[in-house]
Amino acid sequence: MIRLLYFPTLNGRKVAIALEEMGLPYDVEIIDILDGGQDAPAFRAVNPNGKIPALVDGDVRVFESAAILQYLGRKWGRFYPADEPVRAAIDSWLFWQMSGLGPMSGQVNWFARAAQKPGRDPAETGLALHRFRKETERLFAVLEEALTGREYLCGDYSIADMCVWPWIEKYPDNGGGLAAYPAIADWHARIAARPAVQRALAVGLEGLEKYKDIFAVSAPTEKQA
Amino acid sequence: MIRLLYFPTLNGRKVAIALEEMGLPYDVEIIDILDGGQDAPAFRAVNPNGKIPALVDGDVRVFESAAILQYLGRKWGRFYPADEPVRAAIDSWLFWQMSGLGPMSGQVNWFARAAQKPGRDPAETGLALHRFRKETERLFAVLEEALTGREYLCGDYSIADMCVWPWIEKYPDNGGGLAAYPAIADWHARIAARPAVQRALAVGLEGLEKYKDIFAVSAPTEKQA
Repeated sequence: MIRLLYFPTLNGRKVAIALEEMGLPYDVEIIDILDGGQDAPAFRAVNPNGKIPALVDGDVRVFESAAILQYLGRKWGRFYPADEPVRAAIDSWLFWQMSGLGPMSGQVNWFARAAQKPGRDPAETGLALHRFRKETERLFAVLEEALTGREYLCGDYSIADMCVWPWIEKYPDNGGGLAAYPAIADWHARIAARPAVQRALAVGLEGLEKYKDIFAVSAPTEKQA
Repeated sequence: MIRLLYFPTLNGRKVAIALEEMGLPYDVEIIDILDGGQDAPAFRAVNPNGKIPALVDGDVRVFESAAILQYLGRKWGRFYPADEPVRAAIDSWLFWQMSGLGPMSGQVNWFARAAQKPGRDPAETGLALHRFRKETERLFAVLEEALTGREYLCGDYSIADMCVWPWIEKYPDNGGGLAAYPAIADWHARIAARPAVQRALAVGLEGLEKYKDIFAVSAPTEKQA
């Protein structure tokens, strides 16, 4: 049985979506990152980098959310065509999310919170916020162009969409939401309506009653924890 | 024939190393990112995100350096075992570099340069430098532990090593180089001594005579450009 080491962050949700879409049986083990669970030796044995999500399946141990998506896609042969022009395109977008949209919009989030600390000198966060907001806007524009005239990123719905989708929910940080990005907004709504995605968003929450005030608003990101 | 769209940055070099290690014939097309080459429509048609490296091989177009490594590894069957426990581990480390070590140490580099701007208020860069140096040190400690007692990251030399290796050259940003990381230092030297790696470090330089003063020191990162 697949064992998913989980907390319902944006990166965690990518994997819950894939498992639900593929209809795979799996056990969820909550790694409480708000209480140091990622530092437990048993977890470090699976992910030496100490971040959720991670996955164990027999003798396979995988960490980093998009590596897990690739593993699941390879093993179950769904949402990840083996045809090279498509597979290479999906992989390109997976790395684009992991190296670009994720860390850059994550920094916007972190510095925006840091700026709210009482007594904080605005000079301490202004340059970083300018830099990361500008880069996040650039990435949203790239995504908008890629989705214009298309239903999904790489032909049919794929793990590329599952990887990018959770990170759209709380960005951009422009006060106007997705109004400036009609193609992203349509794509986001199309995926949000999928029953498997709705099931995935509920995964693990029953084990996190003590944090219900947090999850009533939105999922925390790893960067916040 | 494989067409590599290239500039000799740290991310570019990952792919040059893989191509040289695999002994594949390829053409290099310099995309001059110091002169806006990444914005040319012909390049954007390959990588809508406007970053090098990118690769074209028949009807396959790939962008993001580690996606290119996976493509080459799959197609030529070297340095990327299909055995799932190994493949999933390699993929985990590829995403670790792309989502962690790359962007985090890249930010150290950018804010350290920003801090040197004449008239810059040190408050504008201090918080970001503290944050990204701390995270980069954490990532180096994770890598040090992963390499302790091992010759390479995932068993035999693989595309995981090729992905991480170029980013070690100019980090950590601690003034002491790799002295605190003996396992990383040994591994780095072991890979640096490979003839294919030495050939890769020279790729494209003959087309960049005008930048010889830059390359005499070290390769620029995409973040600098």
